[in-house]
Amino acid sequence: LTDEDGHGRDLVVGWMRELDLDVGIDVVGNIIGTWNCASGAPVMTGSHIDTVRTGGRFDGNYGVLAGLEVIQTLKEAGITPTRPLAVGIFTNEEGARFAPDMLGSLVYVGGMSVEEALDVIAIDGARFADELEKIGYNGPNPCPGPSPHAFVELHIEQGPVLESIGFRLGSVTGVQGISWQELTIVGQSNHAGTTPMSMRRDPAFVAARITVFLRDLAMRYGPPQVCTVGKVDLVPNLVNVVASKVTMTVDVRNTDEAVLRRAELEFAEFLSVVAQEEDVTISTRTLARFEPVTFDERVVDIVSDVCQSFEVPAHRLPSGAGHDAQMFARVCPTAMIFVPSIKGISHNPAELTDDADLSLGADVLLHTMLRLASTDFTIESNT
Amino acid sequence: LTDEDGHGRDLVVGWMRELDLDVGIDVVGNIIGTWNCASGAPVMTGSHIDTVRTGGRFDGNYGVLAGLEVIQTLKEAGITPTRPLAVGIFTNEEGARFAPDMLGSLVYVGGMSVEEALDVIAIDGARFADELEKIGYNGPNPCPGPSPHAFVELHIEQGPVLESIGFRLGSVTGVQGISWQELTIVGQSNHAGTTPMSMRRDPAFVAARITVFLRDLAMRYGPPQVCTVGKVDLVPNLVNVVASKVTMTVDVRNTDEAVLRRAELEFAEFLSVVAQEEDVTISTRTLARFEPVTFDERVVDIVSDVCQSFEVPAHRLPSGAGHDAQMFARVCPTAMIFVPSIKGISHNPAELTDDADLSLGADVLLHTMLRLASTDFTIESNT
Repeated sequence: LTDEDGHGRDLVVGWMRELDLDVGIDVVGNIIGTWNCASGAPVMTGSHIDTVRTGGRFDGNYGVLAGLEVIQTLKEAGITPTRPLAVGIFTNEEGARFAPDMLGSLVYVGGMSVEEALDVIAIDGARFADELEKIGYNGPNPCPGPSPHAFVELHIEQGPVLESIGFRLGSVTGVQGISWQELTIVGQSNHAGTTPMSMRRDPAFVAARITVFLRDLAMRYGPPQVCTVGKVDLVPNLVNVVASKVTMTVDVRNTDEAVLRRAELEFAEFLSVVAQEEDVTISTRTLARFEPVTFDERVVDIVSDVCQSFEVPAHRLPSGAGHDAQMFARVCPTAMIFVPSIKGISHNPAELTDDADLSLGADVLLHTMLRLASTDFTIESNT
Repeated sequence: LTDEDGHGRDLVVGWMRELDLDVGIDVVGNIIGTWNCASGAPVMTGSHIDTVRTGGRFDGNYGVLAGLEVIQTLKEAGITPTRPLAVGIFTNEEGARFAPDMLGSLVYVGGMSVEEALDVIAIDGARFADELEKIGYNGPNPCPGPSPHAFVELHIEQGPVLESIGFRLGSVTGVQGISWQELTIVGQSNHAGTTPMSMRRDPAFVAARITVFLRDLAMRYGPPQVCTVGKVDLVPNLVNVVASKVTMTVDVRNTDEAVLRRAELEFAEFLSVVAQEEDVTISTRTLARFEPVTFDERVVDIVSDVCQSFEVPAHRLPSGAGHDAQMFARVCPTAMIFVPSIKGISHNPAELTDDADLSLGADVLLHTMLRLASTDFTIESNT
């Protein structure tokens, strides 16, 4: 919801209008461009165009632009799907400025109230509603929005799995659970030269112990457990002053809800112990908490079938990252398509995928959307 | 050298002029107020009026204001010392904005060139000379400045020693050595959800290991070894991004130069090991490095004698913090007087000393300055 986000939205909305799509904007800024070529609920694709501060070009943008490419290609080929096709741009997927992440798609499916979303305060102190209004994307459409017939999101993997096993396509079976916490550690500010080590109540040292503990926990649990401390702020943050306060974030993920809960519990116990040992107070605040998501097997199968039809087999894998698709999985048959990330690098300007893989992914998206349009999900499949 | 520092200087210079002192300002902004009541080199006292961002009221200010109180008291009592008395306010003692700390007194005694000092860049990017000019304290007096006959600084202890052993006065025997480094750790920015732990090159985790190592080192070495990580900055500092870069400061102090060197060496070896283990690069920059200082025994004895004359014995102790006095120890007989800090708290708004102790310290300063004025340091003492 920065000015730059506004400019990006204007650009992509312009492209939607060039494709003669009906563009609707809802109360939390989600943009849905629909090709009303038929009646009924649309097959929807889409992703996000917001980014982390040091992100790459493909994360999110790829899925949105490929969706538009699918519609343009079908129009140019004179092919009319049996249902409307829609491309969504969902607000604040990254959660880099507002928590939780995937906020737009969460509100779209009714997982968070509009009022609560509009009142979210950014890490820079700005209010969601004010920032949305400033860029002119406080639209009229209500949330929750209408459920699509089916949802499929095309995204870069953002991890090293596909490349390391030599697959060009991934059929995503689900999304791992995400637990985000913000910790506030309060100790006692003091002079770095005169305060004996035994008398210190140093929140910076406690933050370090927490960071080391989380690495140890992740290594003990083994893959797919991951733990990250990505944000740490000391007060007053000066060379010769024992800090008075540290705020830090903790990102813990696992594909298994039971294991994720065990990790959270063990971490909470550690916080209690370290707070006592170091004579500091630690308060915690949940920034986001999403259980692992399992995608619709029928959609996962369709993605795999389409990949096979290109004679490029898809590897079935869970997603390490959160995606808007996981929200749509609550309201309609949903899955995702992955293309590889070179060296697994993402959230980094060096993020890259081969042109051929990007193109292949868009082809798979096109045929998957057509297949979804002609699939009646009210009939249970045999598999 | 902020505007607030300028206002503080204006206030204290005004008080100096009310006492009819000759006020001289040198090229790095040191302010010397001299009572030219006699001929010869002055007995100088003084300290600093700059502060860390979350400092207390006494650190530095106490020594400067007590110096002015000494002169006012002598004038009111009609007592004329046998030498001029001078009170110095030394620029950037804390080093909170410009490195090294004690910059003003260091330049005054010729330990750093004026040119080098004027070119120092602040943590906020400002240049020392520009900031000095902005507040109007780029004075005409040259550095190095004239050596005083003797120097004595009155300061709060900023540590818990005097209080814990029940002494109201400290006769300071020297200052521990200080080693300040800035570390820059470069790893690889990546997605917190999709990057397996085994593939991470996480500078935030390395910063945590370094912080824990330094605590361990300080505990192994035992008192008076202290190590502090007071400043840590992650890039991009976001919840769901493995950091690309961390800059952090390290403050290591000991009263024994050999032990301090051993600590530095052991730390450097650890950095080399951890950089290899975690596949990051670590570069180091020295922000300040001062060897431990031993004060002039004759001045230390005079301080102790004066305390005894008040029937309040002084405890002899080294200073954990750096002080302007340690720079003057290079050019003239020098020592310090300490009063207790309640609970040892300093660099904290809660910093406090009993009024009675503050008053007693100023009395000791007065009589010490008179004794120093009448002492001929060219004659070796019998002790």
